[in-house]
Amino acid sequence: MNREVNVKEIKSSNNEYIKELAKLKIKKNRDLEKKFLVEGYHLIEMAEDYIETILISDIKDLNIIKNKKYIIVTKEIINKLSQTQTPQGIIGVVRKKEEFIDDGNILVLDNVQDPSNVGTLIRSALSFNIQNIILSNDCVDIYNDKVIRGSQGSIFKINHIYCDLCEKINELKKKNYKIYGTSLKKAICIDEVKFENHFALILGNEGQGVSDDILQQTDCNLYIPISSQIDSLNVAVAGSILMYELTKQTK
Amino acid sequence: MNREVNVKEIKSSNNEYIKELAKLKIKKNRDLEKKFLVEGYHLIEMAEDYIETILISDIKDLNIIKNKKYIIVTKEIINKLSQTQTPQGIIGVVRKKEEFIDDGNILVLDNVQDPSNVGTLIRSALSFNIQNIILSNDCVDIYNDKVIRGSQGSIFKINHIYCDLCEKINELKKKNYKIYGTSLKKAICIDEVKFENHFALILGNEGQGVSDDILQQTDCNLYIPISSQIDSLNVAVAGSILMYELTKQTK
Repeated sequence: MNREVNVKEIKSSNNEYIKELAKLKIKKNRDLEKKFLVEGYHLIEMAEDYIETILISDIKDLNIIKNKKYIIVTKEIINKLSQTQTPQGIIGVVRKKEEFIDDGNILVLDNVQDPSNVGTLIRSALSFNIQNIILSNDCVDIYNDKVIRGSQGSIFKINHIYCDLCEKINELKKKNYKIYGTSLKKAICIDEVKFENHFALILGNEGQGVSDDILQQTDCNLYIPISSQIDSLNVAVAGSILMYELTKQTK
Repeated sequence: MNREVNVKEIKSSNNEYIKELAKLKIKKNRDLEKKFLVEGYHLIEMAEDYIETILISDIKDLNIIKNKKYIIVTKEIINKLSQTQTPQGIIGVVRKKEEFIDDGNILVLDNVQDPSNVGTLIRSALSFNIQNIILSNDCVDIYNDKVIRGSQGSIFKINHIYCDLCEKINELKKKNYKIYGTSLKKAICIDEVKFENHFALILGNEGQGVSDDILQQTDCNLYIPISSQIDSLNVAVAGSILMYELTKQTK
């Protein structure tokens, strides 16, 4: 037996609740309310466990996920809340999930700024069974809509924490994690790395790479051999190749 | 001895030449004029061989590349032509380079739509010494500003052609190229592939993958093993990992 579906309707985009939700487009308000918005069927399915309320403009979407609170809204309201060019007519209000369990391999992001890069890296991390992500406090917000879209919803399947990297890396070293930096200085080729059971892989800013104080804490630094015709790979590509290589031997 | 620098000045954004250049933001006009614009120091250096004219708003940039035609313009003109949020004050007018030489490994893109993905893939291709790119006619325009920025200027170091993929793949097969598709159906794991001296690797659309008629022409299809928790990798990541693996053995 299904529980009775709890449905109400909002027709004005000046409704107070809608105005509150629109504020979640700004990081400051997401931090304050500990909530964020996701758009579209795929992301709402991925976020299922953390969804509070689902706003729909088409009655056919009612009960698309069972046992959730639904609000029927106008297309105008969807457009007001949407951050995509062609909204799908369904928006979820999602509780932030903040937890971190360091019991497996870890991806560490040091001041990575581009939301598509962070989204793509989280998608690749989950693909290679790395479910723990540590972000420096100056990384882009993981609840930015472009990060969520770039991650294809994989942010709902990983654990993450924002923190001071130096402190956190010290903790991990005490727990016998192998700490891999990425750098061209004093680095070894990814082909020559022997597998370690627990590792943390650190990727850096798009322009500057991993910061010097963090590189001083690593056990070793890795590089991917590339043509002399080009300076570097995109950080999401480089990180994904390294995660692929480092986890390949455990399959 | 330097040749005398050829400099003129334009102050009005309504100048006919500036209005013509502004039209190059649209693909149709880039196709017609066989020209496009690049912005910023790094990209202008990368495009050096193909640059016709350099527009600068700061006199200090005069002669930044030797033996080119310079026009000093206002910041307003730079803003009119720029497609970035923070223009660097230097814009190059570049001749399109259309050539294709199938004498090495080849990357083939079938209806790839996202300009950042195409830019990133070209950057990775050059990184792994793949300098020939074939694009289906329905791929995004390689001279789109987001492709150029995503490629970090590597589009100036590769050969490319837009064409009908079925015909072109038939030609490559006659030249003994090994044709690799990417698919989850009837595919073999990338770990199990034996190196071939000349290959063409085909990547498909972000949503639909490689089209069925193209997959029928491949010698074999490759996949990258990933977690069951996720459907797929980003196409730029998947393509980069495959290029990395396929070219690794030739180093």
